[in-house]
Amino acid sequence: MFEQLGLVGCGLMGGSFALALKRAGLVKKVVGFSPSQATTSRALHMGVIDQVATSASHAASGSDLVLVAVPVSVTQLSFQAIAQELSNNCLVMDVGSTKSDVLLAANAALGDKLAQFVPAHPIAGKEVSGVEHADPDLYTACQVILTPTDRTNATLLKQATAVWQALGCKVRQMTAADHDAAFAAVSHLPHLLAFAFMQSIASQQQSAAFLELAGPGFRDFTRIAAGDPKVWRAIFLANATEVLAQSQNFRSSLEALERAVLEGDSAAIETLVSQANQLRSQWTLNGSSSK
Amino acid sequence: MFEQLGLVGCGLMGGSFALALKRAGLVKKVVGFSPSQATTSRALHMGVIDQVATSASHAASGSDLVLVAVPVSVTQLSFQAIAQELSNNCLVMDVGSTKSDVLLAANAALGDKLAQFVPAHPIAGKEVSGVEHADPDLYTACQVILTPTDRTNATLLKQATAVWQALGCKVRQMTAADHDAAFAAVSHLPHLLAFAFMQSIASQQQSAAFLELAGPGFRDFTRIAAGDPKVWRAIFLANATEVLAQSQNFRSSLEALERAVLEGDSAAIETLVSQANQLRSQWTLNGSSSK
Repeated sequence: MFEQLGLVGCGLMGGSFALALKRAGLVKKVVGFSPSQATTSRALHMGVIDQVATSASHAASGSDLVLVAVPVSVTQLSFQAIAQELSNNCLVMDVGSTKSDVLLAANAALGDKLAQFVPAHPIAGKEVSGVEHADPDLYTACQVILTPTDRTNATLLKQATAVWQALGCKVRQMTAADHDAAFAAVSHLPHLLAFAFMQSIASQQQSAAFLELAGPGFRDFTRIAAGDPKVWRAIFLANATEVLAQSQNFRSSLEALERAVLEGDSAAIETLVSQANQLRSQWTLNGSSSK
Repeated sequence: MFEQLGLVGCGLMGGSFALALKRAGLVKKVVGFSPSQATTSRALHMGVIDQVATSASHAASGSDLVLVAVPVSVTQLSFQAIAQELSNNCLVMDVGSTKSDVLLAANAALGDKLAQFVPAHPIAGKEVSGVEHADPDLYTACQVILTPTDRTNATLLKQATAVWQALGCKVRQMTAADHDAAFAAVSHLPHLLAFAFMQSIASQQQSAAFLELAGPGFRDFTRIAAGDPKVWRAIFLANATEVLAQSQNFRSSLEALERAVLEGDSAAIETLVSQANQLRSQWTLNGSSSK
């Protein structure tokens, strides 16, 4: 049970965390900061937070749990703002989709409080943003990846694990580098491709006529292209090396398939498509039966 | 009301059509052919068909409606098989995802019965195949594209339109060439990309570890990669020129995005991603409110 959650950033991710924590009876009070007054007013009105903080450091002050849930681009500034106010036993987490850059920011900004920071990536989200979409069930049954270093406080790491587990999440640990390599492959690249695909439709004169004919396959394939441009710009930049490596690898696969189609090589097409089909058919979300 | 539907091919598409037609009270009897006896036995047992035909021509004989729902690769053979048995007023349709190649096959095989053929593409499907997945609701509320030529019998074209409308479909007409160009963009290319993406994951040593971390975005983006390899091989080959042109166009968009990421060009990334986001956010399936 936490006495006070300091929420730095009251958007979809932070707001959903606060609601889930409250519902689970794990926090007495939530103090929230957002640079937008409209956001904190709404968060207060929705019961996401109990008190509006006037700054990030104000939100951290007196908290025994701080969640930094801000766009990646302002993570370091947020860490700088809270560093002086952190009490010695306060657990600090983030929710970012990239982890190496967050660790760099924490290293640069948190000073002797660095050990209190447990980098976290809950694999959850929606194609909408803002506190108005905050949902206490956003994290239910999702995976959370923690990327501690050898400097991370072991007690706080256990506490971080316990919090997410109490929200119904499956918690895993790995290095930030392994995390970023894996998510470049299974998340960042698919987003890059979905954005590029919609771009390629947009670039064609007949795009409106084409789109009228699009069906359920198109709907599912392009759903992630509705992701927030600022969020995804930040992710692509933060994880550029891994994302570009995955994109290069993808282009090799695409070129092999294109070549087979161009040459009318029926056997090669079927082999390539069958391998893709098999891998996808065997996969399930979190090992569940959901396809 | 039809006296007899001759079903040539008793898979997901054909079986679902028969079930929908029966439920709507639009057919008295369904006679079905499949080269696989297990399939026709199951179709009979499920009530998809009322009588097993021993050949495609047997299924066509005495029918006033024939649906050819076979893999694209055997469409022409199927037309050849039924041509002699078609009565003068019998409406013939297919359900193929490509239309120029089907028209070529019909031209070559149907002879003086060509006018009775109304090429049809219902935009519906599942990532599973086989009569066991036949579903009377598969076509409910979907779009059906008809691609008649100036040789198509006008009365039968009206009848074709009425049948699909009676099943709850929205019917549109366009040329086969326009159809194939549009579907290369909104269906065939997404499948090519989804297959290539899964291939690129499969090609990496850490693929199993990566896949354990994949979330809901990955699930939706790759759902179509579970499509039937034989079906998609046939579609890529049948519509190769348009598919490769779309793929080329896509690669230009991907390269522009990659370049922006490589150069750390934050503004360019945001512009490209925002355009993609906007086009996708405004799109709805069949103009409905479903995203």
